[in-house]
Amino acid sequence: MTSSDHSFSAAPVLALDLGASRIRAAVVLPDGSIAARAEGVTRSSDGPQAVVADMIGLLRAVRAAAPTEVVAGLRGIGVCAPGPLDAASGRLIDTPNLGPAFRDIPITAPIAAALGLPAVLERDTVVALLGELGFGAARDARDAVYITVSTGVGGAVLAAGRLLAGADGLAGEIGHLTVDLDGPMCGCGGRGHLEAITSGSGLARAAADLVATGLAPGLAAMATLAGRSLSARDLADAEAAGDPDAAALLGRARRAFAAAMVGVVDVFNPEVVVVGGSLAHGQGERLLGPARDAVAREAFRVQATRVRLVPARLGDDVGLVGALGLVGRRAAGDWAGN
Amino acid sequence: MTSSDHSFSAAPVLALDLGASRIRAAVVLPDGSIAARAEGVTRSSDGPQAVVADMIGLLRAVRAAAPTEVVAGLRGIGVCAPGPLDAASGRLIDTPNLGPAFRDIPITAPIAAALGLPAVLERDTVVALLGELGFGAARDARDAVYITVSTGVGGAVLAAGRLLAGADGLAGEIGHLTVDLDGPMCGCGGRGHLEAITSGSGLARAAADLVATGLAPGLAAMATLAGRSLSARDLADAEAAGDPDAAALLGRARRAFAAAMVGVVDVFNPEVVVVGGSLAHGQGERLLGPARDAVAREAFRVQATRVRLVPARLGDDVGLVGALGLVGRRAAGDWAGN
Repeated sequence: MTSSDHSFSAAPVLALDLGASRIRAAVVLPDGSIAARAEGVTRSSDGPQAVVADMIGLLRAVRAAAPTEVVAGLRGIGVCAPGPLDAASGRLIDTPNLGPAFRDIPITAPIAAALGLPAVLERDTVVALLGELGFGAARDARDAVYITVSTGVGGAVLAAGRLLAGADGLAGEIGHLTVDLDGPMCGCGGRGHLEAITSGSGLARAAADLVATGLAPGLAAMATLAGRSLSARDLADAEAAGDPDAAALLGRARRAFAAAMVGVVDVFNPEVVVVGGSLAHGQGERLLGPARDAVAREAFRVQATRVRLVPARLGDDVGLVGALGLVGRRAAGDWAGN
Repeated sequence: MTSSDHSFSAAPVLALDLGASRIRAAVVLPDGSIAARAEGVTRSSDGPQAVVADMIGLLRAVRAAAPTEVVAGLRGIGVCAPGPLDAASGRLIDTPNLGPAFRDIPITAPIAAALGLPAVLERDTVVALLGELGFGAARDARDAVYITVSTGVGGAVLAAGRLLAGADGLAGEIGHLTVDLDGPMCGCGGRGHLEAITSGSGLARAAADLVATGLAPGLAAMATLAGRSLSARDLADAEAAGDPDAAALLGRARRAFAAAMVGVVDVFNPEVVVVGGSLAHGQGERLLGPARDAVAREAFRVQATRVRLVPARLGDDVGLVGALGLVGRRAAGDWAGN
């Protein structure tokens, strides 16, 4: 099932997904299947040099494990990492999820030199969009939005078949739309952003604040028992067990998500909105259902009729499979760094 | 000062701006100057046929008034109207600002037939963006956002030199971003949209609601004296006179605008955000200043450093001058209807 879209590589690629906790590498074939894979822990506390060395080691390992004829056909290396990053120069710029040392770190230059192949770097959400576009829930779309709901809320946009890049290649930060003018502070310093209310970090912060008030006895007891502050996952468990405060926090998170989706549909007029990320996956239709209802009820008629709001399909491999799109688009000239 | 951008017509065009209260027509020269102009009242209560006939009459009048050599060089007709509309088929689809009769009304076909020139239709905000891009505050930008704050709040986006169209040519409705999850209803049926809080209609509604509570004696007295409900303009007068309730309503409107601008800057990573519309013009730096401060304080570092947030420059002629871009882009293939 090779993608019919010419912006995906028709030759195999090396792929690397640099995450906050794990580094994953693979050899990816043009049909989206994985010929070899390897992974390791992200040793961010050992600093950028150690992490880059590990990235190179994992890429060498998967190349050594792939069949010779596949290795001979390798076209390039697609690397994704948490943003913000500078795709044009192939550097991480400030990457809070990896730590303060990961500022202005060259990524593509050392990797390309070590592997002898051209390397391209993009934000993880952009690569996930490309993966879903080629092989997942957004196949063949020309106007698509990808949103991840996880520790943070991130996004990427395809407009008329091209990646929305912006002047510095940083466009698509949908998690930082303000949805509640008087809402809680966001990790970025803003107030009431979607990420501050709907993300894992935002929900954990809201739970801690609520426990501190003494007004949520069920959650307070749970935190005491666990001996730590509560996560979004804990809130989901508490909601399932009938805790009203957990249900209220998650309900507000879903309402904020739904409201943001109305705006996204009105502003981008996409064919499809793909929602990925662990927290979205965990909540499933409890997150997507109300958003779909809100869009049907509140977005403009034509936009609401047009759009499909669907879960991501590719799971953890999305950042690897998406490398086909990254390498292909660089060659085709549709990439923020061009 | 012919625009250096090839997406602007290098030949003169006929331009028509269909507004809720007035229709304006002009012959526009490639340097953005106006060789002939005419205008009339929008007789929307007489129905779509009367309005289309008036549009044709005004276009014929300006053509008759222009020098022969200009008329001989006319390349096409650029028409702008309130949205939503269907650029591809050249029809108004539902245009609440003109009345319920203006649904599914062919515009370009009768105009092109009557004038013997190809006609292109686009949303007023898109044409305003093109005008500012060629001859105003966004000259030569490749990533730009235009926002109008007036009776409603509308927008249009240029991404990597191309208009953001979306699947149906309707993208860019920035006024319908949710900024206050628990906020007032919007004219569109949504809740807490930017337009519901910051627009002229939203402010008038908020003022009426506040007067009805009996908690705003100054505004109540003003409404009684005027014998009508208050407009955004009245609120500005009351604020200038020291009324605290007017100041609070306008302050919230400005805060909502500033919060939305943070999101717009993070999501689009534009070089420039141009703010037009009568209400923005009236408020000037009182609207733009806080938005600039919020962007500097809360948007991502690179995006915040990149962007200029500036007032529109072209004033009432923007919908006419923008026709050069509309006709030019249609020829160049960058237009929602292509």
